[in-house]
Amino acid sequence: MILDRITAANDIKALDRNEIPELCDEIREFLIEHISETGGHLASNLGVVELTVAMHLVFDPTKDRLIWDVGHQSYTHKILTGRKDAFDRLRCEGGISGFPRTEESVCDPFNTGHSSTSISAGLGLAAARELTGEDYSVVSVIGDGALTGGMAYEAMNNASKLKKNFIIVLNDNKMSISENVGGVSAYLSGIRTAAFYRGLKNGVKESLGNMPHGEKIIESISRTKNSFKQILIPGMYFENMGIIYLGPVDGHDVNAVAKILREAKKIDGPVLVHVVTKKGKGYLPAERHPERFHGADPFVIETGLPKKKREAPNYTDIFSTVMRKLGDREEALVAITAAMAEGTGLKRFRNLFPDRFFDVGIAEAHAVTFAAALASQGLKPVVAVYSSFLQRAYDQILHDVCIQKLPVLFCIDRAGLVGSDGETHQGIFDISYLGSIPNMTLMAPKNKWELSDMMKFALQLEAPAAIRYPKGEAWCGFKEKRTPLALGKAEVLHQGKKLALFAYGSMVKTAAEVKEELDKDGFDCTLINARFAKPLDEELILSLEKEHTVLVTMEENVRRGGLGEQVADLLLAKGSTMKQVLIALPDAYIEHGSVGEQKKKTGIDTASVAEKIRAVLKEGKIRP
Amino acid sequence: MILDRITAANDIKALDRNEIPELCDEIREFLIEHISETGGHLASNLGVVELTVAMHLVFDPTKDRLIWDVGHQSYTHKILTGRKDAFDRLRCEGGISGFPRTEESVCDPFNTGHSSTSISAGLGLAAARELTGEDYSVVSVIGDGALTGGMAYEAMNNASKLKKNFIIVLNDNKMSISENVGGVSAYLSGIRTAAFYRGLKNGVKESLGNMPHGEKIIESISRTKNSFKQILIPGMYFENMGIIYLGPVDGHDVNAVAKILREAKKIDGPVLVHVVTKKGKGYLPAERHPERFHGADPFVIETGLPKKKREAPNYTDIFSTVMRKLGDREEALVAITAAMAEGTGLKRFRNLFPDRFFDVGIAEAHAVTFAAALASQGLKPVVAVYSSFLQRAYDQILHDVCIQKLPVLFCIDRAGLVGSDGETHQGIFDISYLGSIPNMTLMAPKNKWELSDMMKFALQLEAPAAIRYPKGEAWCGFKEKRTPLALGKAEVLHQGKKLALFAYGSMVKTAAEVKEELDKDGFDCTLINARFAKPLDEELILSLEKEHTVLVTMEENVRRGGLGEQVADLLLAKGSTMKQVLIALPDAYIEHGSVGEQKKKTGIDTASVAEKIRAVLKEGKIRP
Repeated sequence: MILDRITAANDIKALDRNEIPELCDEIREFLIEHISETGGHLASNLGVVELTVAMHLVFDPTKDRLIWDVGHQSYTHKILTGRKDAFDRLRCEGGISGFPRTEESVCDPFNTGHSSTSISAGLGLAAARELTGEDYSVVSVIGDGALTGGMAYEAMNNASKLKKNFIIVLNDNKMSISENVGGVSAYLSGIRTAAFYRGLKNGVKESLGNMPHGEKIIESISRTKNSFKQILIPGMYFENMGIIYLGPVDGHDVNAVAKILREAKKIDGPVLVHVVTKKGKGYLPAERHPERFHGADPFVIETGLPKKKREAPNYTDIFSTVMRKLGDREEALVAITAAMAEGTGLKRFRNLFPDRFFDVGIAEAHAVTFAAALASQGLKPVVAVYSSFLQRAYDQILHDVCIQKLPVLFCIDRAGLVGSDGETHQGIFDISYLGSIPNMTLMAPKNKWELSDMMKFALQLEAPAAIRYPKGEAWCGFKEKRTPLALGKAEVLHQGKKLALFAYGSMVKTAAEVKEELDKDGFDCTLINARFAKPLDEELILSLEKEHTVLVTMEENVRRGGLGEQVADLLLAKGSTMKQVLIALPDAYIEHGSVGEQKKKTGIDTASVAEKIRAVLKEGKIRP
Repeated sequence: MILDRITAANDIKALDRNEIPELCDEIREFLIEHISETGGHLASNLGVVELTVAMHLVFDPTKDRLIWDVGHQSYTHKILTGRKDAFDRLRCEGGISGFPRTEESVCDPFNTGHSSTSISAGLGLAAARELTGEDYSVVSVIGDGALTGGMAYEAMNNASKLKKNFIIVLNDNKMSISENVGGVSAYLSGIRTAAFYRGLKNGVKESLGNMPHGEKIIESISRTKNSFKQILIPGMYFENMGIIYLGPVDGHDVNAVAKILREAKKIDGPVLVHVVTKKGKGYLPAERHPERFHGADPFVIETGLPKKKREAPNYTDIFSTVMRKLGDREEALVAITAAMAEGTGLKRFRNLFPDRFFDVGIAEAHAVTFAAALASQGLKPVVAVYSSFLQRAYDQILHDVCIQKLPVLFCIDRAGLVGSDGETHQGIFDISYLGSIPNMTLMAPKNKWELSDMMKFALQLEAPAAIRYPKGEAWCGFKEKRTPLALGKAEVLHQGKKLALFAYGSMVKTAAEVKEELDKDGFDCTLINARFAKPLDEELILSLEKEHTVLVTMEENVRRGGLGEQVADLLLAKGSTMKQVLIALPDAYIEHGSVGEQKKKTGIDTASVAEKIRAVLKEGKIRP
């Protein structure tokens, strides 16, 4: 195996040139084999094997700064920088991350995870290089999908000031996670289909054909012979921003990519190298269904099918079904996603109601203000989004939705611990950042039926609202408990005494288990489904005092700014005599691992919670 | 006066055509007269008089949707829609807002305040129009400065999908609040200087001259006669995004603007109309110093000088001075602003250390990640920013700065109540949204010397940190109290007993006054300067129990997620017997008015706080 000779960064440079294609094949096999075992991002990594190899031939990753936008496509980079053997524990607790991490290797100069940050980061490194007088290359690799994010544009707009070399590699795979959208995408597609696939000359013709005087321009261009200048023409969009454009080039031709990168390296100022790649390249199931192999669970290589069949629906499935049903009934219902139709479960809605479905690209900020405007005209927009990505739109929620009290419903998936994606993707801040926003209503369902009920309830609220639900299987407990929702009212699932468990969303299941544990000690715990983190059911909480000594609040969110602190404030303000046990996540980022491991580590699993409560009971000498 | 005949929307349409120039003059005079009395945004409003008049001639503001990006330039729009007489109380309590507000008029279809939202909002309205089958025009007016914000780009990228008419008016005044930056700005400037000022034909020549084959292109263009097509050429950047470009047109020529708007109205799909205006137009001091007349205090019309001379320095001045001094001493210090060099006090730093100063445009998200990357290379970036604008970068702080624990210092101006700008600009959420972020340190100075001390302290922390300080005069109290800063340690200003006041930042002054009040009742209040909202001085707080019955926490931030809740959590968790009085802002947006009025209204002024404490003392029968 050639791959066996790659044990550290730059080892690749010692290979014979004609060994490179074989190396690429081996890497591809390695990726498929390992990801089929551990799960992980497959399609994007298969797409950049040759690009990464070319980058490692041209640059020195220990000195040059290679930044991977989002970062889930950095596996080959990890393989080539001494982390090959760590792939057995990829995204597992204690193992390597699925994203670049400075702690992991000097070859990871800057952490990524969320989309569209790499040009900003690269510009910062390039500016630092000029100030410190050092000498290294800075290369930001960004997908065409990530280019729909406003930050990438903000950064490109700033790039033109740079006097020294800075390379943006546009990894153009004609899609981000789901189908790509927008004018720039159409523009790129024009370059691609034209200039690349059909030969350069015809391509330029095609790109310009629809432009005013395109014919004349083509005529004049075709009279000159300087191919470098011809190459520039398709990238006028970038050129207009002051960025030199090179490309497009076939991203699966190592020599071609290496050549253009060497050319780019020589240029003073910012350069964009347009590399066309294919997601899933070399593994048919991933080529055919790149979204399915975006973030994949362990799968059978031969068939591409998941190893474990999912038995119960997850919350995304429930959301998807409810949206479909409501879409039928409610003509004003519209759905908005930021490039996550698949992940958030909006695909079916899109197929059934294409006019009422909007995929805005990786553009959460725009998505939210756009939704606000739709709501201002009587429509009922649902923004389906992951908790950690909604962080991108904090100001728009505060400034565009909530000041005007516009009825936008946020359906927040992956709220809580997310497992293997790790710290950049944890959805553990939304109660805090949304809770501080006036006019907002926050809800979380205890089980799958309640998600459906809450969506219907929220849609008739005529005010901003958010429903959070976690990754993974939708709970089916307490099917029989389905009392109608009322704004700011919690649901008493069991009336006991002395000890009350007040749990929010996903923690109701844990609370039910904790109750079982403690009831074994002779207690008869009261069990409450909080339902609302905002407004809080203050009346109910205060009324607990009569029969209870200890109130346990439970949430899958950081403690700071969460529901528990709010309860503490209430109890203290009203002079309640109850003792509070506050169960929440610590003030920390939480690394990759399984959700179960993460819960245990952070002390919000059933055993840890029961233990904490028992300690308080013991200390306070509280007996059943 | 012609203006007297304009008492409602659309009245302008009854005027004789040749009365329009006179009307514009009268509006200009009206603006200068009124803003010189009340204060407000002058330069931007003087720049759009003719543009607004033209829009009101072409569109029906009661039916068509006119959206003003940021919205501080909507004064003429307000004058023309029946709000002329309300200008006596512009930005005053109970008076009209300085920004568009749906509550104020049907002619304000969507609230604005922060930059770069108008295209997203306009697209939402246009999409709603298509779904509801209504018929109206949607016009978003956006400045060239606002075009540096990523959201505007996200929205433009989505505009191309629109099949029906949607008009973006690019109000190009060659600058935003401070000097404009970036590749797109340079691009626009190319169009402007070329195509507009030097005549259309020469202009196109100039714009294309630097492009590859520009000469040839010009040649071929000059052979055709269709001027409409010629006009399209300069806007290729927008055309590439699928937006039809018209312009540039002289924004002070009502007829020309009206004509191009009528043309734009006829086009199916998205159109951008490039209008060139001059900030401050018609009032010499504002033309010369548009930044000074961006948001102006009341001024003397003859001289342009402020009516009230500022006697004491404000916190911005202190920040400015400290940055200058530290810049001398510390070579690694770099400063970053998002188009607010003037407002944040970075102008002097820019002038002295141009290489270490970065104005990234209205691009807070990029600013923060860019700063993170600079910090990763050993530089010491200071991001100077207003509290409400930093909301735009919540995710970047959480994801790019704090996960990697990068030493970026955020100097947060306008933190707290801001007065006349009102609800969109209140800096009252930052303790909440920053407090929930792990690895962050939060500070606020009690007086001007402490701001300086905190900046120095933060710069040697080697971790993310933020210092918040309010608008207005820097307090000079407690000059003698300048104990060295220690991470997470509060400062005891006076050791008393029974009643402890624990105040953060701006509230230390209020607390000192409250102490004076209560001491009159015979108390000897302990007075503590919290210094850190994160990490909290838990040890000190808990130790207060020995000698104190009541702990008053005071902060100029919303209650939810603020410092007080955190203290409540601590007291309850540790079983403290102290009663807490939590002074914070309510869970609400706070309208324009003076800061003093806003403090009173929200109960955080000295009298209200003293009263609240007295009520608790009375209820608890707590005597000196």
